[in-house]
Amino acid sequence: MILLENYKELLEFAGKLADTSGSILRKGFQGVLNIETKADSSPVTQLDKDVEKSLRYMIEEAYPEHGIIGEEFGNIRESSPYQWIIDPIDGTKAFIAGYLTFTTLVALLHNGKPVIGIIDQPILQQRWAAISGQKTLYNGTPLPLIANKKSLEEANIATTSTGYFTDQQAIKLKQLKDNDANIILGGDAYAYAMLASGRLDIVLDVAMKPYDYCTLAPVIECAGGVITDWSGKPLTLRSDGSVIASASKELHKTCLEILSKQ
Amino acid sequence: MILLENYKELLEFAGKLADTSGSILRKGFQGVLNIETKADSSPVTQLDKDVEKSLRYMIEEAYPEHGIIGEEFGNIRESSPYQWIIDPIDGTKAFIAGYLTFTTLVALLHNGKPVIGIIDQPILQQRWAAISGQKTLYNGTPLPLIANKKSLEEANIATTSTGYFTDQQAIKLKQLKDNDANIILGGDAYAYAMLASGRLDIVLDVAMKPYDYCTLAPVIECAGGVITDWSGKPLTLRSDGSVIASASKELHKTCLEILSKQ
Repeated sequence: MILLENYKELLEFAGKLADTSGSILRKGFQGVLNIETKADSSPVTQLDKDVEKSLRYMIEEAYPEHGIIGEEFGNIRESSPYQWIIDPIDGTKAFIAGYLTFTTLVALLHNGKPVIGIIDQPILQQRWAAISGQKTLYNGTPLPLIANKKSLEEANIATTSTGYFTDQQAIKLKQLKDNDANIILGGDAYAYAMLASGRLDIVLDVAMKPYDYCTLAPVIECAGGVITDWSGKPLTLRSDGSVIASASKELHKTCLEILSKQ
Repeated sequence: MILLENYKELLEFAGKLADTSGSILRKGFQGVLNIETKADSSPVTQLDKDVEKSLRYMIEEAYPEHGIIGEEFGNIRESSPYQWIIDPIDGTKAFIAGYLTFTTLVALLHNGKPVIGIIDQPILQQRWAAISGQKTLYNGTPLPLIANKKSLEEANIATTSTGYFTDQQAIKLKQLKDNDANIILGGDAYAYAMLASGRLDIVLDVAMKPYDYCTLAPVIECAGGVITDWSGKPLTLRSDGSVIASASKELHKTCLEILSKQ
Protein backbone atom coordinates (compact mmCIF):
# COMPACT_ATOMS: atom_id res chain seq x y z
CA MET A 1 0.00 0.00 0.00
CA ILE A 2 1.29 3.44 -0.92
CA LEU A 3 0.78 6.10 1.68
CA LEU A 4 -0.09 9.33 -0.04
CA GLU A 5 0.77 12.34 2.06
CA ASN A 6 -1.91 14.41 0.47
CA TYR A 7 -4.45 11.64 0.07
CA LYS A 8 -7.28 13.46 1.80
CA GLU A 9 -6.94 16.39 -0.55
CA LEU A 10 -6.72 14.14 -3.60
CA LEU A 11 -9.77 12.09 -2.59
CA GLU A 12 -11.70 15.27 -1.92
CA PHE A 13 -10.74 16.55 -5.34
CA ALA A 14 -11.75 13.24 -6.98
CA GLY A 15 -15.11 13.70 -5.25
CA LYS A 16 -15.44 17.14 -6.81
CA LEU A 17 -14.84 15.62 -10.23
CA ALA A 18 -17.66 13.14 -9.56
CA ASP A 19 -19.89 16.02 -8.36
CA THR A 20 -19.40 17.87 -11.62
CA SER A 21 -20.02 14.76 -13.68
CA GLY A 22 -23.18 14.09 -11.67
CA SER A 23 -24.57 17.56 -12.35
CA ILE A 24 -24.14 17.08 -16.08
CA LEU A 25 -25.47 13.51 -16.12
CA ARG A 26 -28.55 14.22 -13.99
CA LYS A 27 -29.67 16.71 -16.61
CA GLY A 28 -28.52 14.53 -19.50
CA PHE A 29 -30.23 11.39 -18.22
CA GLN A 30 -33.66 13.00 -18.67
CA GLY A 31 -32.52 14.66 -21.89
CA VAL A 32 -31.81 11.49 -23.84
CA LEU A 33 -35.31 10.23 -23.05
CA ASN A 34 -37.24 9.60 -26.23
CA ILE A 35 -34.82 11.54 -28.41
CA GLU A 36 -35.26 10.74 -32.07
CA THR A 37 -31.93 10.52 -33.81
CA LYS A 38 -30.43 8.54 -36.61
CA ALA A 39 -27.63 7.14 -34.51
CA ASP A 40 -29.33 7.05 -31.16
CA SER A 41 -26.15 6.80 -29.13
CA SER A 42 -24.99 10.24 -30.26
CA PRO A 43 -26.57 12.33 -27.47
CA VAL A 44 -24.87 9.99 -25.04
CA THR A 45 -21.51 10.31 -26.78
CA GLN A 46 -21.91 14.10 -26.62
CA LEU A 47 -22.63 13.92 -22.88
CA ASP A 48 -19.57 11.72 -22.44
CA LYS A 49 -17.45 14.38 -24.15
CA ASP A 50 -19.03 17.23 -22.18
CA VAL A 51 -18.21 15.54 -18.88
CA GLU A 52 -14.66 14.59 -19.89
CA LYS A 53 -13.97 18.13 -21.08
CA SER A 54 -15.18 19.70 -17.80
CA LEU A 55 -13.23 17.25 -15.69
CA ARG A 56 -10.06 17.80 -17.70
CA TYR A 57 -10.30 21.55 -17.09
CA MET A 58 -10.67 20.92 -13.36
CA ILE A 59 -7.64 18.61 -13.28
CA GLU A 60 -5.53 20.98 -15.40
CA GLU A 61 -6.25 23.78 -12.95
CA ALA A 62 -5.78 21.87 -9.71
CA TYR A 63 -2.92 19.53 -10.66
CA PRO A 64 -1.24 20.90 -13.80
CA GLU A 65 1.66 18.47 -13.37
CA HIS A 66 -0.57 15.33 -13.35
CA GLY A 67 -1.25 13.24 -16.41
CA ILE A 68 -4.74 12.54 -17.78
CA ILE A 69 -5.89 9.42 -19.59
CA GLY A 70 -9.10 10.13 -21.44
CA GLU A 71 -11.28 8.08 -23.77
CA GLU A 72 -12.40 10.98 -25.96
CA PHE A 73 -9.57 13.54 -25.83
CA GLY A 74 -6.43 11.41 -25.56
CA ASN A 75 -3.62 11.23 -23.03
CA ILE A 76 -1.38 14.01 -21.75
CA ARG A 77 1.78 14.05 -19.60
CA GLU A 78 2.08 10.28 -19.73
CA SER A 79 5.42 10.35 -17.91
CA SER A 80 3.95 11.94 -14.75
CA PRO A 81 3.87 9.56 -11.75
CA TYR A 82 0.24 10.62 -11.19
CA GLN A 83 -2.35 9.82 -13.83
CA TRP A 84 -6.06 10.62 -13.65
CA ILE A 85 -8.34 8.30 -15.55
CA ILE A 86 -12.01 9.06 -16.11
CA ASP A 87 -15.02 7.21 -17.48
CA PRO A 88 -17.86 9.77 -17.60
CA ILE A 89 -20.59 7.18 -18.29
CA ASP A 90 -19.72 3.61 -17.45
CA GLY A 91 -22.66 1.49 -18.61
CA THR A 92 -23.72 3.48 -21.65
CA LYS A 93 -26.37 0.95 -22.61
CA ALA A 94 -27.86 1.08 -19.10
CA PHE A 95 -27.88 4.88 -19.32
CA ILE A 96 -29.79 4.74 -22.60
CA ALA A 97 -32.21 2.09 -21.33
CA GLY A 98 -32.90 4.04 -18.13
CA TYR A 99 -31.45 1.47 -15.73
CA LEU A 100 -29.75 3.16 -12.78
CA THR A 101 -26.69 0.94 -12.94
CA PHE A 102 -24.66 3.42 -15.00
CA THR A 103 -21.98 5.32 -13.07
CA THR A 104 -19.15 7.81 -13.39
CA LEU A 105 -15.70 6.38 -12.68
CA VAL A 106 -12.74 8.44 -11.48
CA ALA A 107 -9.36 6.90 -10.67
CA LEU A 108 -5.90 8.15 -9.81
CA LEU A 109 -2.88 6.02 -10.60
CA HIS A 110 0.46 6.44 -8.83
CA ASN A 111 3.41 4.88 -10.68
CA GLY A 112 0.95 2.84 -12.73
CA LYS A 113 -1.00 1.47 -9.78
CA PRO A 114 -4.60 2.60 -9.05
CA VAL A 115 -4.54 4.27 -5.61
CA ILE A 116 -7.80 6.23 -5.67
CA GLY A 117 -11.11 5.03 -7.06
CA ILE A 118 -14.60 6.50 -7.14
CA ILE A 119 -17.76 4.83 -8.42
CA ASP A 120 -20.58 7.39 -8.46
CA GLN A 121 -24.26 6.84 -9.32
CA PRO A 122 -25.51 10.38 -9.82
CA ILE A 123 -29.29 9.76 -9.88
CA LEU A 124 -29.34 7.61 -6.74
CA GLN A 125 -26.58 9.78 -5.26
CA GLN A 126 -24.60 6.73 -4.25
CA ARG A 127 -20.84 7.04 -4.07
CA TRP A 128 -18.16 4.48 -3.32
CA ALA A 129 -14.78 6.19 -2.76
CA ALA A 130 -11.51 4.49 -1.88
CA ILE A 131 -7.89 5.31 -1.34
CA SER A 132 -5.28 2.58 -0.85
CA GLY A 133 -4.76 1.74 2.79
CA GLN A 134 -8.08 3.19 3.99
CA LYS A 135 -11.52 1.62 4.18
CA THR A 136 -13.81 2.22 1.20
CA LEU A 137 -16.30 4.99 1.94
CA TYR A 138 -19.95 4.69 0.97
CA ASN A 139 -21.43 8.18 0.88
CA GLY A 140 -18.69 9.28 3.26
CA THR A 141 -19.02 6.46 5.79
CA PRO A 142 -16.48 3.61 5.97
CA LEU A 143 -17.98 0.32 4.74
CA PRO A 144 -17.63 -2.68 7.05
CA LEU A 145 -15.06 -5.07 5.55
CA ILE A 146 -16.72 -7.83 3.55
CA ALA A 147 -17.04 -10.94 5.71
CA ASN A 148 -18.15 -13.58 3.26
CA LYS A 149 -17.72 -17.30 3.81
CA LYS A 150 -19.69 -18.52 0.82
CA SER A 151 -18.43 -21.37 -1.30
CA LEU A 152 -18.43 -21.19 -5.09
CA GLU A 153 -21.61 -23.32 -5.09
CA GLU A 154 -23.42 -20.75 -2.93
CA ALA A 155 -22.03 -17.68 -4.68
CA ASN A 156 -24.04 -15.22 -6.77
CA ILE A 157 -22.06 -14.16 -9.84
CA ALA A 158 -22.56 -11.05 -11.96
CA THR A 159 -21.17 -10.38 -15.41
CA THR A 160 -22.11 -7.43 -17.58
CA SER A 161 -22.45 -9.28 -20.84
CA THR A 162 -21.41 -12.66 -22.14
CA GLY A 163 -21.55 -11.14 -25.62
CA TYR A 164 -17.88 -10.17 -25.39
CA PHE A 165 -16.67 -13.58 -24.17
CA THR A 166 -14.51 -15.73 -26.39
CA ASP A 167 -15.67 -19.35 -26.68
CA GLN A 168 -12.90 -20.32 -24.27
CA GLN A 169 -14.00 -17.68 -21.74
CA ALA A 170 -17.64 -18.80 -22.05
CA ILE A 171 -16.54 -22.35 -21.23
CA LYS A 172 -14.69 -21.05 -18.14
CA LEU A 173 -17.86 -19.29 -16.93
CA LYS A 174 -19.81 -22.53 -17.40
CA GLN A 175 -17.13 -24.30 -15.36
CA LEU A 176 -17.62 -21.77 -12.54
CA LYS A 177 -21.41 -22.18 -12.63
CA ASP A 178 -23.06 -24.90 -14.64
CA ASN A 179 -26.51 -23.34 -14.54
CA ASP A 180 -27.80 -19.81 -15.00
CA ALA A 181 -29.74 -19.64 -11.72
CA ASN A 182 -27.02 -17.73 -9.87
CA ILE A 183 -25.64 -15.65 -12.72
CA ILE A 184 -27.01 -12.14 -13.12
CA LEU A 185 -26.32 -10.22 -16.31
CA GLY A 186 -25.79 -6.46 -16.57
CA GLY A 187 -24.42 -4.10 -13.98
CA ASP A 188 -21.08 -2.79 -15.30
CA ALA A 189 -19.06 -1.09 -12.52
CA TYR A 190 -22.20 -0.97 -10.35
CA ALA A 191 -21.87 -4.75 -9.94
CA TYR A 192 -18.42 -4.24 -8.38
CA ALA A 193 -19.87 -1.57 -6.08
CA MET A 194 -22.51 -4.10 -5.02
CA LEU A 195 -19.74 -6.59 -4.25
CA ALA A 196 -18.00 -3.94 -2.12
CA SER A 197 -21.32 -3.44 -0.32
CA GLY A 198 -21.68 -7.17 0.34
CA ARG A 199 -24.54 -7.98 -2.05
CA LEU A 200 -22.67 -9.95 -4.72
CA ASP A 201 -20.04 -12.64 -4.23
CA ILE A 202 -18.21 -12.73 -7.56
CA VAL A 203 -18.14 -10.27 -10.46
CA LEU A 204 -16.24 -10.98 -13.63
CA ASP A 205 -15.88 -9.40 -17.03
CA VAL A 206 -13.68 -9.51 -20.10
CA ALA A 207 -12.53 -6.99 -22.69
CA MET A 208 -12.50 -4.16 -20.14
CA LYS A 209 -10.53 -0.99 -20.80
CA PRO A 210 -8.27 0.74 -18.21
CA TYR A 211 -10.92 3.45 -17.66
CA ASP A 212 -13.42 0.64 -16.87
CA TYR A 213 -11.33 -1.32 -14.37
CA CYS A 214 -8.72 0.99 -12.75
CA THR A 215 -11.32 2.50 -10.42
CA LEU A 216 -12.52 -0.89 -9.31
CA ALA A 217 -9.25 -2.04 -7.73
CA PRO A 218 -9.14 0.39 -4.76
CA VAL A 219 -12.93 0.23 -4.22
CA ILE A 220 -12.90 -3.58 -3.98
CA GLU A 221 -9.60 -4.02 -2.12
CA CYS A 222 -10.34 -1.33 0.48
CA ALA A 223 -13.71 -2.99 1.15
CA GLY A 224 -11.98 -6.30 1.92
CA GLY A 225 -12.51 -7.97 -1.45
CA VAL A 226 -9.99 -9.31 -3.93
CA ILE A 227 -9.62 -8.19 -7.55
CA THR A 228 -7.20 -9.31 -10.26
CA ASP A 229 -7.19 -10.30 -13.90
CA TRP A 230 -8.25 -13.87 -14.73
CA SER A 231 -4.71 -15.13 -14.30
CA GLY A 232 -4.44 -13.64 -10.81
CA LYS A 233 -2.26 -10.64 -11.65
CA PRO A 234 -2.98 -7.20 -10.13
CA LEU A 235 -4.74 -4.70 -12.40
CA THR A 236 -2.53 -2.12 -14.07
CA LEU A 237 -2.74 -0.01 -17.21
CA ARG A 238 -1.28 -2.97 -19.10
CA SER A 239 -3.74 -5.66 -17.96
CA ASP A 240 -5.42 -7.78 -20.63
CA GLY A 241 -8.95 -6.57 -19.79
CA SER A 242 -10.13 -9.71 -18.02
CA VAL A 243 -11.24 -8.86 -14.48
CA ILE A 244 -12.51 -10.92 -11.57
CA ALA A 245 -13.48 -9.67 -8.12
CA SER A 246 -14.40 -11.92 -5.22
CA ALA A 247 -15.80 -11.41 -1.76
CA SER A 248 -13.09 -13.53 -0.10
CA LYS A 249 -9.54 -14.77 -0.70
CA GLU A 250 -10.75 -18.38 -0.59
CA LEU A 251 -13.43 -17.78 -3.20
CA HIS A 252 -10.96 -15.92 -5.40
CA LYS A 253 -8.46 -18.76 -5.18
CA THR A 254 -11.12 -21.30 -6.17
CA CYS A 255 -12.20 -19.16 -9.12
CA LEU A 256 -8.65 -18.53 -10.35
CA GLU A 257 -7.88 -22.26 -10.29
CA ILE A 258 -10.75 -22.76 -12.73
CA LEU A 259 -10.16 -19.64 -14.85
CA SER A 260 -6.41 -20.05 -15.29
CA LYS A 261 -6.51 -23.77 -16.06
CA GLN A 262 -5.41 -24.45 -19.65
CA MET B 1 -61.09 -2.72 -25.14
CA ILE B 2 -63.29 -3.74 -22.25
CA LEU B 3 -64.86 -0.91 -20.35
CA LEU B 4 -64.91 -1.78 -16.69
CA GLU B 5 -67.64 0.07 -14.83
CA ASN B 6 -65.71 -0.02 -11.63
CA TYR B 7 -62.28 0.38 -13.17
CA LYS B 8 -61.23 3.33 -11.04
CA GLU B 9 -61.97 1.39 -7.88
CA LEU B 10 -60.14 -1.68 -9.18
CA LEU B 11 -57.07 0.28 -10.25
CA GLU B 12 -57.02 2.04 -6.90
CA PHE B 13 -57.19 -1.31 -5.17
CA ALA B 14 -54.38 -2.70 -7.36
CA GLY B 15 -52.35 0.31 -6.25
CA LYS B 16 -52.99 -0.58 -2.62
CA LEU B 17 -51.67 -4.07 -3.30
CA ALA B 18 -48.50 -2.55 -4.75
CA ASP B 19 -48.24 -0.21 -1.73
CA THR B 20 -48.33 -3.16 0.66
CA SER B 21 -45.79 -5.08 -1.38
CA GLY B 22 -43.54 -2.01 -1.43
CA SER B 23 -43.61 -1.66 2.36
CA ILE B 24 -42.48 -5.25 2.77
CA LEU B 25 -39.85 -5.12 0.03
CA ARG B 26 -38.29 -1.82 1.15
CA LYS B 27 -37.51 -3.46 4.47
CA GLY B 28 -36.56 -6.76 2.88
CA PHE B 29 -34.22 -5.23 0.30
CA GLN B 30 -31.89 -4.03 3.05
CA GLY B 31 -32.43 -7.23 5.02
CA VAL B 32 -31.04 -9.63 2.44
CA LEU B 33 -27.83 -7.63 2.28
CA ASN B 34 -24.86 -9.80 3.16
CA ILE B 35 -26.98 -12.57 4.66
CA GLU B 36 -25.04 -15.78 5.09
CA THR B 37 -27.14 -18.79 4.20
CA LYS B 38 -26.61 -22.16 2.63
CA ALA B 39 -29.12 -21.56 -0.14
CA ASP B 40 -28.75 -17.85 -0.54
CA SER B 41 -32.04 -17.34 -2.37
CA SER B 42 -34.04 -18.44 0.68
CA PRO B 43 -34.53 -15.02 2.35
CA VAL B 44 -35.81 -13.79 -1.01
CA THR B 45 -38.18 -16.73 -1.37
CA GLN B 46 -39.48 -16.01 2.12
CA LEU B 47 -40.09 -12.36 1.22
CA ASP B 48 -41.89 -13.48 -1.93
CA LYS B 49 -44.19 -15.64 0.20
CA ASP B 50 -44.73 -12.89 2.77
CA VAL B 51 -45.85 -10.44 0.09
CA GLU B 52 -48.07 -12.95 -1.71
CA LYS B 53 -49.74 -13.94 1.55
CA SER B 54 -50.51 -10.32 2.51
CA LEU B 55 -51.84 -9.49 -0.92
CA ARG B 56 -54.06 -12.58 -0.99
CA TYR B 57 -55.62 -11.54 2.33
CA MET B 58 -56.34 -8.10 0.89
CA ILE B 59 -57.92 -9.54 -2.26
CA GLU B 60 -59.98 -12.09 -0.29
CA GLU B 61 -61.38 -9.30 1.85
CA ALA B 62 -62.09 -6.77 -0.90
CA TYR B 63 -63.18 -9.09 -3.74
CA PRO B 64 -64.07 -12.47 -2.25
CA GLU B 65 -65.65 -13.57 -5.54
CA HIS B 66 -62.46 -12.94 -7.62
CA GLY B 67 -59.94 -15.63 -8.45
CA ILE B 68 -56.27 -15.47 -7.52
CA ILE B 69 -53.36 -16.93 -9.45
CA GLY B 70 -50.32 -17.17 -7.21
CA GLU B 71 -46.84 -18.58 -7.69
CA GLU B 72 -46.35 -19.75 -4.11
CA PHE B 73 -49.84 -20.56 -2.83
CA GLY B 74 -51.69 -21.87 -5.89
CA ASN B 75 -54.86 -20.80 -7.69
CA ILE B 76 -58.35 -20.30 -6.28
CA ARG B 77 -61.75 -19.69 -7.90
CA GLU B 78 -60.38 -20.33 -11.36
CA SER B 79 -63.84 -20.08 -12.93
CA SER B 80 -64.36 -16.46 -11.83
CA PRO B 81 -64.32 -13.97 -14.76
CA TYR B 82 -61.91 -11.82 -12.71
CA GLN B 83 -58.48 -13.20 -11.84
CA TRP B 84 -55.76 -11.39 -9.90
CA ILE B 85 -52.23 -12.38 -10.69
CA ILE B 86 -49.27 -11.26 -8.62
CA ASP B 87 -45.51 -11.40 -8.87
CA PRO B 88 -44.16 -10.04 -5.57
CA ILE B 89 -40.54 -9.80 -6.78
CA ASP B 90 -40.04 -9.78 -10.52
CA GLY B 91 -36.29 -9.80 -11.12
CA THR B 92 -35.20 -11.89 -8.16
CA LYS B 93 -31.57 -11.90 -9.27
CA ALA B 94 -31.57 -8.09 -9.57
CA PHE B 95 -33.09 -7.88 -6.08
CA ILE B 96 -30.30 -10.06 -4.67
CA ALA B 97 -27.60 -8.16 -6.58
CA GLY B 98 -28.93 -4.80 -5.43
CA TYR B 99 -29.88 -3.51 -8.89
CA LEU B 100 -33.05 -1.39 -8.74
CA THR B 101 -34.62 -3.07 -11.75
CA PHE B 102 -36.66 -5.51 -9.67
CA THR B 103 -40.37 -4.70 -9.38
CA THR B 104 -43.69 -5.93 -8.01
CA LEU B 105 -46.22 -6.89 -10.68
CA VAL B 106 -49.99 -6.85 -10.15
CA ALA B 107 -52.46 -7.70 -12.92
CA LEU B 108 -56.18 -8.25 -13.20
CA LEU B 109 -57.54 -10.47 -15.95
CA HIS B 110 -61.13 -10.26 -17.19
CA ASN B 111 -62.31 -13.32 -19.13
CA GLY B 112 -58.69 -14.36 -19.57
CA LYS B 113 -57.47 -11.01 -20.92
CA PRO B 114 -55.19 -8.71 -18.86
CA VAL B 115 -57.12 -5.46 -18.29
CA ILE B 116 -55.19 -3.92 -15.39
CA GLY B 117 -51.44 -3.90 -14.95
CA ILE B 118 -49.10 -2.35 -12.42
CA ILE B 119 -45.30 -2.34 -12.50
CA ASP B 120 -44.00 -0.93 -9.23
CA GLN B 121 -40.39 -0.20 -8.22
CA PRO B 122 -40.65 0.25 -4.48
CA ILE B 123 -37.21 1.72 -3.73
CA LEU B 124 -37.33 4.35 -6.47
CA GLN B 125 -41.08 4.75 -5.86
CA GLN B 126 -41.78 4.51 -9.56
CA ARG B 127 -45.15 3.10 -10.62
CA TRP B 128 -46.58 2.38 -14.06
CA ALA B 129 -50.31 1.64 -13.82
CA ALA B 130 -52.66 0.88 -16.69
CA ILE B 131 -56.23 -0.08 -17.34
CA SER B 132 -57.44 -1.03 -20.83
CA GLY B 133 -58.78 1.94 -22.73
CA GLN B 134 -57.00 4.57 -20.60
CA LYS B 135 -53.52 6.02 -20.89
CA THR B 136 -50.82 4.38 -18.77
CA LEU B 137 -50.16 6.39 -15.62
CA TYR B 138 -46.62 7.02 -14.38
CA ASN B 139 -46.82 7.94 -10.70
CA GLY B 140 -50.40 9.04 -11.28
CA THR B 141 -49.81 11.16 -14.39
CA PRO B 142 -50.80 9.93 -17.89
CA LEU B 143 -47.75 9.12 -20.01
CA PRO B 144 -47.55 10.74 -23.44
CA LEU B 145 -48.20 8.06 -26.07
CA ILE B 146 -44.96 6.65 -27.47
CA ALA B 147 -44.12 8.40 -30.74
CA ASN B 148 -41.25 6.38 -32.09
CA LYS B 149 -40.23 6.29 -35.73
CA LYS B 150 -37.03 4.29 -35.36
CA SER B 151 -36.17 1.55 -37.79
CA LEU B 152 -34.94 -1.83 -36.60
CA GLU B 153 -31.38 -0.72 -37.43
CA GLU B 154 -31.68 2.27 -35.08
CA ALA B 155 -33.53 0.43 -32.32
CA ASN B 156 -32.16 -0.35 -28.86
CA ILE B 157 -33.20 -3.82 -27.76
CA ALA B 158 -33.38 -5.20 -24.23
CA THR B 159 -33.64 -8.82 -23.17
CA THR B 160 -33.36 -10.06 -19.61
CA SER B 161 -31.17 -13.05 -20.30
CA THR B 162 -30.19 -15.01 -23.35
CA GLY B 163 -29.49 -17.93 -21.01
CA TYR B 164 -33.07 -19.17 -21.45
CA PHE B 165 -33.06 -18.94 -25.25
CA THR B 166 -33.21 -22.09 -27.34
CA ASP B 167 -30.61 -22.27 -30.12
CA GLN B 168 -33.36 -21.37 -32.58
CA GLN B 169 -34.41 -18.32 -30.50
CA ALA B 170 -30.79 -17.19 -30.19
CA ILE B 171 -30.50 -17.30 -33.97
CA LYS B 172 -33.65 -15.15 -34.27
CA LEU B 173 -32.15 -12.54 -31.93
CA LYS B 174 -28.99 -12.49 -34.05
CA GLN B 175 -31.19 -11.96 -37.12
CA LEU B 176 -32.80 -8.95 -35.42
CA LYS B 177 -29.42 -7.48 -34.46
CA ASP B 178 -26.20 -8.87 -35.81
CA ASN B 179 -23.99 -7.15 -33.25
CA ASP B 180 -24.24 -6.64 -29.51
CA ALA B 181 -23.82 -2.86 -29.55
CA ASN B 182 -27.54 -2.13 -29.27
CA ILE B 183 -28.58 -5.07 -27.11
CA ILE B 184 -28.79 -4.49 -23.39
CA LEU B 185 -29.08 -7.44 -21.03
CA GLY B 186 -31.02 -7.49 -17.78
CA GLY B 187 -34.05 -5.48 -16.80
CA ASP B 188 -36.93 -7.94 -16.41
CA ALA B 189 -40.31 -6.12 -16.30
CA TYR B 190 -38.47 -2.82 -15.70
CA ALA B 191 -37.30 -3.00 -19.33
CA TYR B 192 -40.95 -2.99 -20.46
CA ALA B 193 -41.64 -0.02 -18.18
CA MET B 194 -38.72 1.77 -19.83
CA LEU B 195 -40.26 1.04 -23.23
CA ALA B 196 -43.57 2.51 -22.01
CA SER B 197 -41.60 5.58 -20.89
CA GLY B 198 -39.97 5.93 -24.30
CA ARG B 199 -36.40 4.89 -23.43
CA LEU B 200 -36.23 1.49 -25.12
CA ASP B 201 -37.47 0.53 -28.57
CA ILE B 202 -37.83 -3.25 -28.40
CA VAL B 203 -37.94 -5.62 -25.43
CA LEU B 204 -38.15 -9.36 -25.88
CA ASP B 205 -37.96 -12.40 -23.68
CA VAL B 206 -38.69 -16.10 -23.71
CA ALA B 207 -39.83 -18.64 -21.15
CA MET B 208 -41.91 -16.08 -19.28
CA LYS B 209 -44.67 -17.17 -16.93
CA PRO B 210 -48.18 -15.60 -16.85
CA TYR B 211 -47.29 -13.71 -13.63
CA ASP B 212 -44.28 -12.24 -15.51
CA TYR B 213 -46.07 -11.06 -18.66
CA CYS B 214 -49.80 -10.48 -17.91
CA THR B 215 -49.05 -7.11 -16.27
CA LEU B 216 -46.98 -5.97 -19.22
CA ALA B 217 -49.79 -6.05 -21.79
CA PRO B 218 -51.93 -3.15 -20.45
CA VAL B 219 -48.87 -1.09 -19.42
CA ILE B 220 -47.37 -1.30 -22.94
CA GLU B 221 -50.60 -1.07 -24.96
CA CYS B 222 -52.00 1.88 -22.99
CA ALA B 223 -48.69 3.73 -23.51
CA GLY B 224 -49.01 3.33 -27.27
CA GLY B 225 -46.72 0.34 -27.68
CA VAL B 226 -47.42 -3.09 -29.09
CA ILE B 227 -46.95 -6.39 -27.25
CA THR B 228 -47.59 -9.97 -28.37
CA ASP B 229 -45.94 -13.36 -28.29
CA TRP B 230 -43.25 -14.03 -30.90
CA SER B 231 -45.83 -15.28 -33.39
CA GLY B 232 -47.89 -12.10 -33.06
CA LYS B 233 -50.70 -13.46 -30.88
CA PRO B 234 -52.06 -11.41 -27.95
CA LEU B 235 -50.84 -12.44 -24.49
CA THR B 236 -53.23 -14.61 -22.48
CA LEU B 237 -52.86 -17.13 -19.67
CA ARG B 238 -52.19 -19.77 -22.33
CA SER B 239 -49.38 -17.97 -24.20
CA ASP B 240 -46.17 -19.89 -24.83
CA GLY B 241 -44.01 -17.52 -22.77
CA SER B 242 -42.31 -15.75 -25.67
CA VAL B 243 -42.94 -12.01 -25.44
CA ILE B 244 -42.02 -9.07 -27.65
CA ALA B 245 -42.92 -5.43 -27.11
CA SER B 246 -42.18 -2.67 -29.60
CA ALA B 247 -42.40 1.10 -29.59
CA SER B 248 -44.36 1.20 -32.87
CA LYS B 249 -46.61 -0.97 -35.03
CA GLU B 250 -44.13 -0.75 -37.90
CA LEU B 251 -41.22 -1.88 -35.75
CA HIS B 252 -43.32 -4.71 -34.32
CA LYS B 253 -44.31 -5.89 -37.79
CA THR B 254 -40.66 -5.91 -38.92
CA CYS B 255 -39.63 -7.89 -35.83
CA LEU B 256 -42.46 -10.42 -36.16
CA GLU B 257 -41.56 -11.10 -39.77
CA ILE B 258 -38.10 -12.13 -38.60
CA LEU B 259 -39.17 -13.95 -35.43
CA SER B 260 -42.00 -15.97 -36.94
CA LYS B 261 -40.09 -17.05 -40.06
CA GLN B 262 -39.52 -20.82 -40.07
